[in-house]
Amino acid sequence: MTADDLNRVYNFCSGPAAMPRPVMQRVQRELTDYQGSGLSIMEVSHRSEFFLQVLEQAEQHLRTLLDLPEHYRILFMQGGASLQFSAVPLNLAQRHKHIGFIDTGYWSKAAQREALRYAKVTCLASGFDAFRQPISTQNLPLDYVHYTPNETIDGIEFHSIPEFDRDVLLVADMSSCILSEPIPIERFGLVYAGAQKNIGPAGLGVVIVREDLLGLAAEVTPRLLNYSTVLEHNNMANTPPTFAIYVAQLVFEWLLEQGGLLEMAHRNKCKAELLYSAIDQSAIFTNNIPQFCRSRMNVPFQLPSEAVTRQFLSLAEQRGLHHLQGHRSAGGIRASIYNAMPERGVQALVDFMREFERQHVG
Amino acid sequence: MTADDLNRVYNFCSGPAAMPRPVMQRVQRELTDYQGSGLSIMEVSHRSEFFLQVLEQAEQHLRTLLDLPEHYRILFMQGGASLQFSAVPLNLAQRHKHIGFIDTGYWSKAAQREALRYAKVTCLASGFDAFRQPISTQNLPLDYVHYTPNETIDGIEFHSIPEFDRDVLLVADMSSCILSEPIPIERFGLVYAGAQKNIGPAGLGVVIVREDLLGLAAEVTPRLLNYSTVLEHNNMANTPPTFAIYVAQLVFEWLLEQGGLLEMAHRNKCKAELLYSAIDQSAIFTNNIPQFCRSRMNVPFQLPSEAVTRQFLSLAEQRGLHHLQGHRSAGGIRASIYNAMPERGVQALVDFMREFERQHVG
Repeated sequence: MTADDLNRVYNFCSGPAAMPRPVMQRVQRELTDYQGSGLSIMEVSHRSEFFLQVLEQAEQHLRTLLDLPEHYRILFMQGGASLQFSAVPLNLAQRHKHIGFIDTGYWSKAAQREALRYAKVTCLASGFDAFRQPISTQNLPLDYVHYTPNETIDGIEFHSIPEFDRDVLLVADMSSCILSEPIPIERFGLVYAGAQKNIGPAGLGVVIVREDLLGLAAEVTPRLLNYSTVLEHNNMANTPPTFAIYVAQLVFEWLLEQGGLLEMAHRNKCKAELLYSAIDQSAIFTNNIPQFCRSRMNVPFQLPSEAVTRQFLSLAEQRGLHHLQGHRSAGGIRASIYNAMPERGVQALVDFMREFERQHVG
Repeated sequence: MTADDLNRVYNFCSGPAAMPRPVMQRVQRELTDYQGSGLSIMEVSHRSEFFLQVLEQAEQHLRTLLDLPEHYRILFMQGGASLQFSAVPLNLAQRHKHIGFIDTGYWSKAAQREALRYAKVTCLASGFDAFRQPISTQNLPLDYVHYTPNETIDGIEFHSIPEFDRDVLLVADMSSCILSEPIPIERFGLVYAGAQKNIGPAGLGVVIVREDLLGLAAEVTPRLLNYSTVLEHNNMANTPPTFAIYVAQLVFEWLLEQGGLLEMAHRNKCKAELLYSAIDQSAIFTNNIPQFCRSRMNVPFQLPSEAVTRQFLSLAEQRGLHHLQGHRSAGGIRASIYNAMPERGVQALVDFMREFERQHVG
């Protein structure tokens, strides 16, 4: 254990979430003097060689990580995933103006609500029923079907891509699971994600879209939400969030150094198993999500009362186990264990849970 | 002269632009350990006490700097100024669906082009004619009149607020002049600005709007571009760009420490006079903008040939005078001298220009 480990705190925040420590240390080192320029990367033109290199590297690394075929394009956008709740229907729901949704929780509902502004919306399946497949498309003329592979608040995750009774164009909000495992991208027309969980600082949004879906945006689409426009300008239709893209590029680089997404999938599976088995073996901690759809990224769990929950959270803070409170709509406890959370962080949490249980029961 | 000064380079980039050096040093210091938390401000929830305090401080400081009355609200948005080219008409041009524009250059035109997507647009005055006042509103039923007080690329600035032949609701894109001097805000219905010149990192956009103008957005307005929605959620309608707001808050704090906007106005006037008088006294450097509308923030100037311009830019780089190349659409030289550029930076440029002229003419 190094000195750094000894002072180490673990951040279980659901987002903006913990970033890889080596990335943060490098950002700090380079902050006022990027590559010997005497300037911060934050202070240079997006058209400077410095930033153009960052942008190209970010795209290249992401392509490598996701093993993206040429006909999938990468967009670095602003407004996180939420602005994509508007942008996706504006760009892709213009033929039938009808979208199918799978509703598995808070963020599915949010995406669905916003889509209603631009198209007719039909909920094809909801709750745990969404995991019974194939899902019927009800013979509807749908532009696409949208789902949320991992529900950050509800702690629910699809462990495989949903199947339908016919071919559908599939769109996914991968905000809280992107880069946590390989994606069979050819199964998707478009995937998008806010950065602040597994990519980088809040504000950035990443969209990956199949080329043939471009060029169909509604006339009322704001210029910067029009995917074709953003791509025609090589992600520089306006000044991009340069610093956020720089940090994302470092995160991508770190992921490649770690061994890429297969390795991350393995680590994430181990971390999740460690935590769920501690919960399942406990007499006081509970998680009521069925095994087949438990999230590897966001693990919500409960204690018998609010008073005990408060006590747990407060003692956890003192131990350097931070941001374990559940979402304000759900209460309880939630541990978000994205890529940047090391296994020893989850182990520290599990150790503390066991200790708490002994003292609480004793 | 301190050791820091000796190694100092000066960054004349038009944006993302130089930031106050003490701010960058503080960001660096705090980057991996914000207020003893062991976490970066980039890694904490936007609903954590840490960030809520940053957001409140940012708003308070900006209110103080601009001496904002209660009935003007502050929005921290994403997408810089360019996304506001869509958001402003979507929010404010819904009654008559007709907007008056004053066209003084590149960014006026860009705003006007995007507004056409949502409303009828009439250009009321353009070029240097826009400075002959009062400007006729042609008896048109206009929702508002939009202008660009400072044109970053053209180097043109209004030294006073334009007058019209009748009362109009005035909207201004202040991206490259906000915080450079006090704003008589009651003359405006709305002002907006991208952050990357005088506020903070690229990606953030700031909107200041008179309260009574809220609540009229078009139905097709994306949720995150609807000013009422953003304000109902206290600037947290989705995860805000937390790190960018944190840096902006430090810039606001720095401005207050410097003595506020009156002091900045004084400094900016001095810096601009220093540079323009060097140009006007020179036999080889020229700036053809009439005195009455020369920009204090962005000073474009020319040399007799492209070859000499290239030579100047290359020698300037060697001297630590960076990013002096003109915009790709304009060529020549451009020195952006926002708040963060100290007078000694402009002096260093002027000294170098004189030396270059002596050697070039000699």
